[in-house]
Amino acid sequence: MSRIVVIGGVAAGMSAASQAKRRRPDAEVIVLERGPDVSYGACGIPYNIEDPAREIDDLVVIAAERFRTERGIDLRTGHEAIGLDVAGRTVRVRERSGEYDLGYDRLVIATGAAAVRLPLPGADLPGVFAVRELRDGAAIKQHLAATRARRAVIIGAGYVGVEMAEALRGRGLEVTVLEKADQVVPGFEPAIAAIVQDELVRHGTRVETGVSVTAIEPGLAVQTDRGAVPADLVLVAVGIRPNVALARAAGIGLGDTGAIAVDDEQRTSAPDVFAAGDCAEARHLISGHLAWVPLGTTANKQGKIAGANAAGAAERFAGIVGTAGFKAFDLEVGRTGLGLAEARHLGFDAIASRSRHKSRGHSYPGGTDVTTVLVVERATGRLLGAQMIGEDAGKRIDVLATALHAGMTVDDLEGLDLAYAPPLAPVYDPVLIAATVARKELAAT
Amino acid sequence: MSRIVVIGGVAAGMSAASQAKRRRPDAEVIVLERGPDVSYGACGIPYNIEDPAREIDDLVVIAAERFRTERGIDLRTGHEAIGLDVAGRTVRVRERSGEYDLGYDRLVIATGAAAVRLPLPGADLPGVFAVRELRDGAAIKQHLAATRARRAVIIGAGYVGVEMAEALRGRGLEVTVLEKADQVVPGFEPAIAAIVQDELVRHGTRVETGVSVTAIEPGLAVQTDRGAVPADLVLVAVGIRPNVALARAAGIGLGDTGAIAVDDEQRTSAPDVFAAGDCAEARHLISGHLAWVPLGTTANKQGKIAGANAAGAAERFAGIVGTAGFKAFDLEVGRTGLGLAEARHLGFDAIASRSRHKSRGHSYPGGTDVTTVLVVERATGRLLGAQMIGEDAGKRIDVLATALHAGMTVDDLEGLDLAYAPPLAPVYDPVLIAATVARKELAAT
Repeated sequence: MSRIVVIGGVAAGMSAASQAKRRRPDAEVIVLERGPDVSYGACGIPYNIEDPAREIDDLVVIAAERFRTERGIDLRTGHEAIGLDVAGRTVRVRERSGEYDLGYDRLVIATGAAAVRLPLPGADLPGVFAVRELRDGAAIKQHLAATRARRAVIIGAGYVGVEMAEALRGRGLEVTVLEKADQVVPGFEPAIAAIVQDELVRHGTRVETGVSVTAIEPGLAVQTDRGAVPADLVLVAVGIRPNVALARAAGIGLGDTGAIAVDDEQRTSAPDVFAAGDCAEARHLISGHLAWVPLGTTANKQGKIAGANAAGAAERFAGIVGTAGFKAFDLEVGRTGLGLAEARHLGFDAIASRSRHKSRGHSYPGGTDVTTVLVVERATGRLLGAQMIGEDAGKRIDVLATALHAGMTVDDLEGLDLAYAPPLAPVYDPVLIAATVARKELAAT
Repeated sequence: MSRIVVIGGVAAGMSAASQAKRRRPDAEVIVLERGPDVSYGACGIPYNIEDPAREIDDLVVIAAERFRTERGIDLRTGHEAIGLDVAGRTVRVRERSGEYDLGYDRLVIATGAAAVRLPLPGADLPGVFAVRELRDGAAIKQHLAATRARRAVIIGAGYVGVEMAEALRGRGLEVTVLEKADQVVPGFEPAIAAIVQDELVRHGTRVETGVSVTAIEPGLAVQTDRGAVPADLVLVAVGIRPNVALARAAGIGLGDTGAIAVDDEQRTSAPDVFAAGDCAEARHLISGHLAWVPLGTTANKQGKIAGANAAGAAERFAGIVGTAGFKAFDLEVGRTGLGLAEARHLGFDAIASRSRHKSRGHSYPGGTDVTTVLVVERATGRLLGAQMIGEDAGKRIDVLATALHAGMTVDDLEGLDLAYAPPLAPVYDPVLIAATVARKELAAT
């Protein structure tokens, strides 16, 4: 009888374990999760925090006990993998009462990613939190309830920073967002980022870009190169990095991105060892390179494939095109494919074309402007990437993601037969307008 | 100097005229519109009726005068084309003060479609209206204001019938919808139609299917084979048919659908005569046949191409995949490609696979179920069509429309990298779930 061990019990890990057990009911499937919680949707933390009445455990998708009783998985919470011997096929495990060695036939590494900590004085003070794990969310909620915090400072204006600004404004706090880069949501095109910033400000958030945090002082106060910002609550949302210490120490190959290198079957450099989720790379179909784009969707899909293959299948992950979305107050924001700088860095002769159109039909009430940036290869007109902001941008970006998968040009895009009704879209959807504008710009260059 | 004449001044006609004039500023561009209104968005009529405070003229996208002064188009409202001599390149025109002949070098026929009238006693009674032209909308609003109508009967439960049910419920009327077919929104898969009907009923609309209207009696009362339904207002929304009398009398070829046959350049069988919009066919990329799917998007696109080509270009219309969407109270409904019966009728060995999933992420408040039907070719897994109902279904259907354009299989669909964030979608978007379910059903057959 064979044993499949999975290290990590969140999205990729539990997908892998569930899929492995489904494929091979006779196999012993063991999950090692160092924390107390499994299978939770970390992406929902800001929205859970926004609602004081909701339990943090609402974020748990499937309770630990159900994996044990209904799915027959030997789920061990509070068990941390502290060593890995890929030649001896053994994991060293630490739990409360001691340590033990656990042999495996197949191993799935799904150790995820951890919040980057600020290497600054005061980063560990009470009232300073990351926004990553379930317990972070719980701690923030408890702090809000216990201290009646009025003033929040969010360090970092990426997705999580923006989502937390919305959540805390929703709870009535004064919110200041500090971003080191010269725009919010770094990595987005400046035209999109400027609209995100306007939306933050329109909803009463103070935003400072190009500012460096130098320390957090007890009290609390966030010291920056422009002065101090007093706070009752500080959130550090300056990004995440893959948890690869275990894999690296075991001699498993990492990619250029620093995450675990995998092939399309999620196999690592070590025999019978798979990796999936935020700790692993993925093939980017537009750049052709391995990329590290840690997101819940990819984690779930890769986990499923790693689990299937650990159980003997030979399934292949389809790859990513770098699609991501988030909400910024009343606007949705989406991106897919390459940004302009990224495309040029990869050697594409590319242009970025910007357009603006309405989200709904003429004379239908409500709606917003939708701003679209298309990144297009000059010689061929092939779509390389897209970013959008406005009503339904988080869904419209999926049309462009699908077009990227299909290798469409802006001519192809312009010919798409998309749904029209006044509540849904204008006669020419913003996607079609964007294609027309890009075609004209290509013709003019 | 050449003269381009356009017959019809709504979506396709004004798109054609504007495009022709832009391409050939030296050409004389004349538009003949028999009614008083041009360039209006008929699709917005239900939403305009819902709001008593809004002027019906809000539906006019570009005022007639602006076409004349800003675009240099000789726009003749109240001028009806009553005869066409394609050999002599002459249109016979009737206006208030008489008739005249108008020669042309190039002609664009954009005569649109007209509401089907019930061939029944009482169909012309006061209080009985179609919902097609701007003046229909104006007449309905005036009737509502003048009579304080309380009870509406809508004959026909297609898109327009459903949209008008929502509009009139919004104005507080009792609404009964009578449909001859055995389901609402005929042409949609039964599973989707059933949810539309539930939504109508949930919002207090009475719905009767499989019922035949036999007469409308003064008073008003709608007589059916099941008894009479009293009404203060009767809307007839039993479909439209293409206005082809002029073209047919001129010997221009019609297609099997009864609409004007055109090639990809919008050329008819007559030299230098183009047709576009609701009076014309379009190539359906999935069936490969010419189809008649009269919608505003196609009308605008075809009009633009007909106008460009009338001005000497050789642009090609990309064709349609039969995408359409509408809103039914709180739900969006979309379709693209072929329905199951249609696919089988065309000779495809197809299956229909049904799935249901949430519209938003786990533990994010609100949202609805999204039900999806995929029509898939059995041997290849190629997507042939899709229908969806639920939150954002009108946008999600565009992903499937794009997949149809690209010839994707359900395997391709399952591998799409779509945007995820709790307010936008679940980790596995309903589109991905639908693909997974369809793959499993294919594997099981």
